[in-house]
Amino acid sequence: MGWQKAMLDKLAHTFQIRNKLLRQGLAECLGTLILVMFGCGAVAQVVLSEGSHGLFLTVNLAFGFAATLGILVCGQVSGGHLNPAVTFALCLLGREKWRKFPVYFLFQTLGSFLGAAIIFAEYHDAMYDYAGESNELLVVGPKATAGIFATYPSAHLTILNGFFDQVIGTSSLIVCILAIVDPYNNPIPQGLEAFTVGFSVLVIGLSMGFNSGYAVNPARDFGPRLFTAIAGWGGEVFTARECWFLVPIFAPFIGSVIGVLVYQLMVGWHVEGEARDKKNKATEESLKLNDIASKD
Amino acid sequence: MGWQKAMLDKLAHTFQIRNKLLRQGLAECLGTLILVMFGCGAVAQVVLSEGSHGLFLTVNLAFGFAATLGILVCGQVSGGHLNPAVTFALCLLGREKWRKFPVYFLFQTLGSFLGAAIIFAEYHDAMYDYAGESNELLVVGPKATAGIFATYPSAHLTILNGFFDQVIGTSSLIVCILAIVDPYNNPIPQGLEAFTVGFSVLVIGLSMGFNSGYAVNPARDFGPRLFTAIAGWGGEVFTARECWFLVPIFAPFIGSVIGVLVYQLMVGWHVEGEARDKKNKATEESLKLNDIASKD
Amino acid sequence: MGWQKAMLDKLAHTFQIRNKLLRQGLAECLGTLILVMFGCGAVAQVVLSEGSHGLFLTVNLAFGFAATLGILVCGQVSGGHLNPAVTFALCLLGREKWRKFPVYFLFQTLGSFLGAAIIFAEYHDAMYDYAGESNELLVVGPKATAGIFATYPSAHLTILNGFFDQVIGTSSLIVCILAIVDPYNNPIPQGLEAFTVGFSVLVIGLSMGFNSGYAVNPARDFGPRLFTAIAGWGGEVFTARECWFLVPIFAPFIGSVIGVLVYQLMVGWHVEGEARDKKNKATEESLKLNDIASKD
Amino acid sequence: MGWQKAMLDKLAHTFQIRNKLLRQGLAECLGTLILVMFGCGAVAQVVLSEGSHGLFLTVNLAFGFAATLGILVCGQVSGGHLNPAVTFALCLLGREKWRKFPVYFLFQTLGSFLGAAIIFAEYHDAMYDYAGESNELLVVGPKATAGIFATYPSAHLTILNGFFDQVIGTSSLIVCILAIVDPYNNPIPQGLEAFTVGFSVLVIGLSMGFNSGYAVNPARDFGPRLFTAIAGWGGEVFTARECWFLVPIFAPFIGSVIGVLVYQLMVGWHVEGEARDKKNKATEESLKLNDIASKD
Repeated sequence: MGWQKAMLDKLAHTFQIRNKLLRQGLAECLGTLILVMFGCGAVAQVVLSEGSHGLFLTVNLAFGFAATLGILVCGQVSGGHLNPAVTFALCLLGREKWRKFPVYFLFQTLGSFLGAAIIFAEYHDAMYDYAGESNELLVVGPKATAGIFATYPSAHLTILNGFFDQVIGTSSLIVCILAIVDPYNNPIPQGLEAFTVGFSVLVIGLSMGFNSGYAVNPARDFGPRLFTAIAGWGGEVFTARECWFLVPIFAPFIGSVIGVLVYQLMVGWHVEGEARDKKNKATEESLKLNDIASKD
Repeated sequence: MGWQKAMLDKLAHTFQIRNKLLRQGLAECLGTLILVMFGCGAVAQVVLSEGSHGLFLTVNLAFGFAATLGILVCGQVSGGHLNPAVTFALCLLGREKWRKFPVYFLFQTLGSFLGAAIIFAEYHDAMYDYAGESNELLVVGPKATAGIFATYPSAHLTILNGFFDQVIGTSSLIVCILAIVDPYNNPIPQGLEAFTVGFSVLVIGLSMGFNSGYAVNPARDFGPRLFTAIAGWGGEVFTARECWFLVPIFAPFIGSVIGVLVYQLMVGWHVEGEARDKKNKATEESLKLNDIASKD
Repeated sequence: MGWQKAMLDKLAHTFQIRNKLLRQGLAECLGTLILVMFGCGAVAQVVLSEGSHGLFLTVNLAFGFAATLGILVCGQVSGGHLNPAVTFALCLLGREKWRKFPVYFLFQTLGSFLGAAIIFAEYHDAMYDYAGESNELLVVGPKATAGIFATYPSAHLTILNGFFDQVIGTSSLIVCILAIVDPYNNPIPQGLEAFTVGFSVLVIGLSMGFNSGYAVNPARDFGPRLFTAIAGWGGEVFTARECWFLVPIFAPFIGSVIGVLVYQLMVGWHVEGEARDKKNKATEESLKLNDIASKD
Repeated sequence: MGWQKAMLDKLAHTFQIRNKLLRQGLAECLGTLILVMFGCGAVAQVVLSEGSHGLFLTVNLAFGFAATLGILVCGQVSGGHLNPAVTFALCLLGREKWRKFPVYFLFQTLGSFLGAAIIFAEYHDAMYDYAGESNELLVVGPKATAGIFATYPSAHLTILNGFFDQVIGTSSLIVCILAIVDPYNNPIPQGLEAFTVGFSVLVIGLSMGFNSGYAVNPARDFGPRLFTAIAGWGGEVFTARECWFLVPIFAPFIGSVIGVLVYQLMVGWHVEGEARDKKNKATEESLKLNDIASKD
């Protein structure tokens, strides 16, 4: 054991990264990898088994609890955002520094990309078996498999409604997350935030998943889409449905702003104000007491 | 960051509402909005996808966890009732002031209305696609979509049994909630009340959802129904099935009274009495000791 | 509010029951009522909707979380057994007094009876609608509804295997419950026992529900069966399948004994012994120290 | 009660095992028995009921929560690994002694064997009823039942992809478990580890179950396979699909190594290093203070 202990210590020293932001980026990368690996894995399982090994509910459950696990893995290091729209909301409120935003965005996208790659390896045989004789990876049509990785809108959806869909979904997510992590509201025991965020993601999937598969996360959608473009589905993943891929990149940030406004206007600023009023009152009273004391 | 901090502080000051009851009303509004948005969203997803993106279980899960999230968002401010029947039960037991009741009822109904409106926007395209060539929003028939928002009884249900259905459902909910929040019973760790109420709503949906869709909440049913009347389904939403809409408004309050009685008679007054007996005994003994001490 | 407060106090005084065992019995009655009402309600929903409003999984979820809710409602008063086999196991281990056993058994059966009655009222119209033109409540056949309340074995099951089924199911439940409440093992935070027991019931339903519907509880099976005998299904509920009704009454107690033995032999007595050994060692050492001190 | 107390004490003394490693082995045995009994029971329920009493999701839920319950039952005694790949990962990191590894492996396999035997007894009638007139227990074909106990690859899967499948699944599990139990990361409240591991197992089943049934555990797969070889399915359980049985024995250990490396490189060594740096700094400062103090 002595030999093993020495070697483990040496490994720990060798690989320790001292730059905090890089460490946080790596943690976000692993967290988002877990989110996308389990989430897209569940989509793959449903699609490739043609429903025998899952249903839309299992995709919702997988994305929800994958978010929980991803946050648990990286939360103590990086906060466990897993989503640039969440990082953006926290920057807007001054709870994270703006310079974190591009770094997190990059590493979250990288994690998504790697998560998609793992699922491609995991279901390599199944994907080609599903493709059938043509042996092609398709973006559209009944044998399409691109939807396992990135989101594509349903046939009924216009781009405008699709944009609203992503705005509504993301702002719902942001309202829930802000309530969960608001230090003035503080509704749940410490350590259960990850579970609660997981339930939020689950519920969004149960109620807002029919239009376009509830990306509500630019990194979760773009990383895997980039992977599919490279891995054999080709550039059609970007051009399909009038360049739909732009919607889950930009709409979530607008949803993020709206979510911040809705939560702060209806709950956040009032609980914050109440806390400030209490503090001010206490300060005033102690000042008065000092005043009286000094007069004596 | 200094500029951002100053602006955030200014916003916080500008929008802070100092009237407590109004603040609580707003919080209830947001909480009920979340309940109805996610809950009715899940119904929309099942109906509009014709079962491919959900089943009755997903509706149950969505309403249950939406209740959890709604309570988490507003609970620290307003108590997180989300349901006039719950506010009524707590007023009956003297735990909330009666003047809260009409305010909460109003804001809960407003929240439900807004939640329904969001779902209408979210699934606008899908709803007209589902309606087909007629392009109409219908209250009854195979292509009816009014049931996404408000509840309508199944064909087998008489008004009398429907009334009992709502009374039984609401009293079950009230018994569970009273046990969860009873300060003398106190069965769960602080901060987990919202999850437990969510499980109660889930279980009610699993076991009492077949008759008429378990409204068990006047605001959750009336707000969305009003929205549908305005948004294009017309007055039929009120007249359908012999003015069914009155049942989920009035029956829950009767259920609330029964729930309070059942819980208090079978558990509540006994645990309360036991606590009082202990306290009285302690007081008596300390009085005796004082008596002895003063005699010395 | 003064008038209301006075009246509530008066009610609390009037209805307070000072006999502890009776109070505990009442609490068990309400807890078991909740278990059976939600559990059998979920069966009713699946059967009467012919699968459109539920599946076997929803029955499992309902029984599991209904157990959680039932325990939460009565746990602080009576321990929340909800099952004579659980009371029996705790009596065997000397953690409850034997005189509680008949009282709990009686009140648990009464609660089950009442829970079944509520579900009969809840789904009265649906049940007769399901029965069709014959308008009869049937015990066997494709339109049978007796299985909503009590358990009946599948066609493939012999009485012997059915007996083992109940023994295995109950002993699994008892092993899990003993681990959860063992003061020497103590694996979960206080207040989460009810949730954990609920998950145990859920898992038993997921894996041992196909043979005969996992009664694993004499009260849960006999109370509703008695109700059906009275409410219109007739004596056939007792005579069906070679008096099957005796199996879920007697087999669970044998399962209880086996569960106690398995848990105590493989985990319980060792953790208990370890705690005792530590205590003895501490006592010995303090005795030695006393000895040394007295010698000085 | 006095007589009962005396007898219980005597039993506790008689059966107490004082060898710690044996006690831990017994606990692991019971924990793994619970995992396999409930997990394989759920597969049996789905297969034998031909889908009427379960779906693939119920198998995922059962394995997930069975892991939770298994860990709760034995966790305080043995750590609740239930999986040689988990024991291996903890040995690699120096958190468990290497001599535990063979003992745990043996008892985990024994527990799996016994769990499979219980499910065979539980569903004995159902299994022969399902086999039909031939009355045979089959390993392959439409009436195969060997898959209830051990895993067999889907038709689309090559051995190579199957090997990767087990490596990816196990390394995902190990990353999640290491994060959950990392003393430097510590993301969840004490006592909730078992639930969180259960969710990890659930999510792996939801997203990586289609290829070969996510064994990700040499004991869970080999124990039941050995049982089937003995109980009537014969040696074909080993020879089927080019000796597939070797894959879920060896691949998980490779997955374990990869999981350890991924977690430690991306999160583990950084949080550990940060804690060490803080400690070193504190020591240095106290040394400096001492230095200053001694100079005075």
